[in-house]
Amino acid sequence: MSVRTPDPYPGWLSDEDLHEARQRLPIAYVEAIPVRVDPLGYVSEVGLLYTADAEAQFRFAFVSGRIMYRETIRGALTRHIEQDLGPLAMPQLPPSPVPFTVAEYFPSPSETGLTDERQHAVALCYIVPVRGECNPRRDALDLHWMSPEAALSADVQSELPGGRGNLIKQALAHVGWCS
Amino acid sequence: MSVRTPDPYPGWLSDEDLHEARQRLPIAYVEAIPVRVDPLGYVSEVGLLYTADAEAQFRFAFVSGRIMYRETIRGALTRHIEQDLGPLAMPQLPPSPVPFTVAEYFPSPSETGLTDERQHAVALCYIVPVRGECNPRRDALDLHWMSPEAALSADVQSELPGGRGNLIKQALAHVGWCS
Amino acid sequence: MSVRTPDPYPGWLSDEDLHEARQRLPIAYVEAIPVRVDPLGYVSEVGLLYTADAEAQFRFAFVSGRIMYRETIRGALTRHIEQDLGPLAMPQLPPSPVPFTVAEYFPSPSETGLTDERQHAVALCYIVPVRGECNPRRDALDLHWMSPEAALSADVQSELPGGRGNLIKQALAHVGWCS
Amino acid sequence: MSVRTPDPYPGWLSDEDLHEARQRLPIAYVEAIPVRVDPLGYVSEVGLLYTADAEAQFRFAFVSGRIMYRETIRGALTRHIEQDLGPLAMPQLPPSPVPFTVAEYFPSPSETGLTDERQHAVALCYIVPVRGECNPRRDALDLHWMSPEAALSADVQSELPGGRGNLIKQALAHVGWCS
Repeated sequence: MSVRTPDPYPGWLSDEDLHEARQRLPIAYVEAIPVRVDPLGYVSEVGLLYTADAEAQFRFAFVSGRIMYRETIRGALTRHIEQDLGPLAMPQLPPSPVPFTVAEYFPSPSETGLTDERQHAVALCYIVPVRGECNPRRDALDLHWMSPEAALSADVQSELPGGRGNLIKQALAHVGWCS
Repeated sequence: MSVRTPDPYPGWLSDEDLHEARQRLPIAYVEAIPVRVDPLGYVSEVGLLYTADAEAQFRFAFVSGRIMYRETIRGALTRHIEQDLGPLAMPQLPPSPVPFTVAEYFPSPSETGLTDERQHAVALCYIVPVRGECNPRRDALDLHWMSPEAALSADVQSELPGGRGNLIKQALAHVGWCS
Repeated sequence: MSVRTPDPYPGWLSDEDLHEARQRLPIAYVEAIPVRVDPLGYVSEVGLLYTADAEAQFRFAFVSGRIMYRETIRGALTRHIEQDLGPLAMPQLPPSPVPFTVAEYFPSPSETGLTDERQHAVALCYIVPVRGECNPRRDALDLHWMSPEAALSADVQSELPGGRGNLIKQALAHVGWCS
Repeated sequence: MSVRTPDPYPGWLSDEDLHEARQRLPIAYVEAIPVRVDPLGYVSEVGLLYTADAEAQFRFAFVSGRIMYRETIRGALTRHIEQDLGPLAMPQLPPSPVPFTVAEYFPSPSETGLTDERQHAVALCYIVPVRGECNPRRDALDLHWMSPEAALSADVQSELPGGRGNLIKQALAHVGWCS
């Protein structure tokens, strides 16, 4: 690290250094599950990003990404939601910083049941009502809105990799959803 | 109870019976603290109702009221917010039914520090961002919007009766507010 | 109510009056799901009471009961845990009064999915680690300790009446349990 | 990083690399506020470590430390509690992984009000009842047990550096403590 030329973005990591850091440190993440709510606040729909991975397999994904150096949690959430859902999503960030759960992803199987082969990530997970129009960008092909029942169905659960299906269950349990 | 004429609102209580029930049973309540949030979700203002009590003393109050028989928590919250803030307040009820605290009011001093001379109330307390225009109705003279600092000031705290000043502290602590 | 002789237990209700109140007011409840935790705090076992109802059908049940007039939530939780699990259970009440969910039971089907034919109950639900020896008393035949997997199995879920199977799901989701 | 000899502790960072990472990445932390609770679960005492900093100034501190690579949150909490309070503290980790707040420390003043000149830390904060005997180790001179009132007093607050006094307020608000 010490011999390279001055970093043009002091405080941020090059891709290479980030790759190395991911083998050495837990990486702080935020994850957002976008939802539509009815006027009483009941969750009517869950939004999942639909992506294709390197092997052209289709997968569902959450809005998700790293907290950057000197970035607040709210800043990171807002940035990733805008990157993933577009600038018109009108997300309603919760007034409390307390996440509905903390997801621990490990590069190999562990007691948490969550895996991410790239890294050990500690992800603060939030349920975020969005009121506006969502236009998925970045890596996503689409944003699928579905009922809570559908989000818990075997079909959808099987396309949520790395144990993320369980996080949907936790999110819906947190909002008191009943089958 | 058994000798009176048929109840025109089966399932609801007459004023007299409600008065008696209040000497016998804890009464289930909802309380809402309306807030304004900035685009990142930080609380910028707290809304307190300004009322005059029977002795013409001015007091601050929360949006608050009973849960009626067969009414859901969300129904009760929506009804009381509309009654207290008017139909244009555009409240954003939280997706989770978990309150930020449960307030226990007793008719005499107790370990909870909260008192309500009318009753023993168990109140589910929520922070509710409102986006619209508020027009206080019912018993309130006005709705005062103030900064979190002002809500915690000695002046405001001294006009919050029955230990309610402490609930503001709890609400602001829950949203991570720092002095 | 007004013509009877002075109440020997002022502030409490006779059985008859309680029956009437249950047709008129939501009743404030506490519910506890006892758990065993390992040294790291992971939930290893869930405790369910095993009871027989009036038709001699076997059912699972939670530790559950009314909050009495002038009783604190912690007082009610402690009393019902002792009545249901015996005096040696050594429960560890959570330091925060915030429940993991608020269960709304209605006398007829509703959007909450929870029913209780006797009443409309608003139940504050807590997960309570117990360290001691449990000797079920009152109406329970037994206390069954089971793994989280077993508690979520179709067999157990089918013997949890009134939608309570969903509350187990919510409790286990809250502790981050993954299948 | 790439030219050095093989790392004897693969996956962990040398002091030098950790120093560099702290200028580039938010570091994932856990913090625990030890408490004594009475039989009903009310917090009766708060435990603060008493330390001397490099300038021989006395300061209060929380149990606190990094989450290591591949370490779970519960593992990190248990390790740091044992290092700071000794092996006989008998901590009761909460069954839920949800922290009472997430503290964001920045190397310079920010909207969170929390500072740590060494780094940007994202700290998951827990209230941890301890039942056993505490023998502070590592850097601490002592563990001070004090009433909630004392923990909120101006004296103690002034010896909690970097905005940590506010975290005590949040912790006590979370447990429903009333002045």
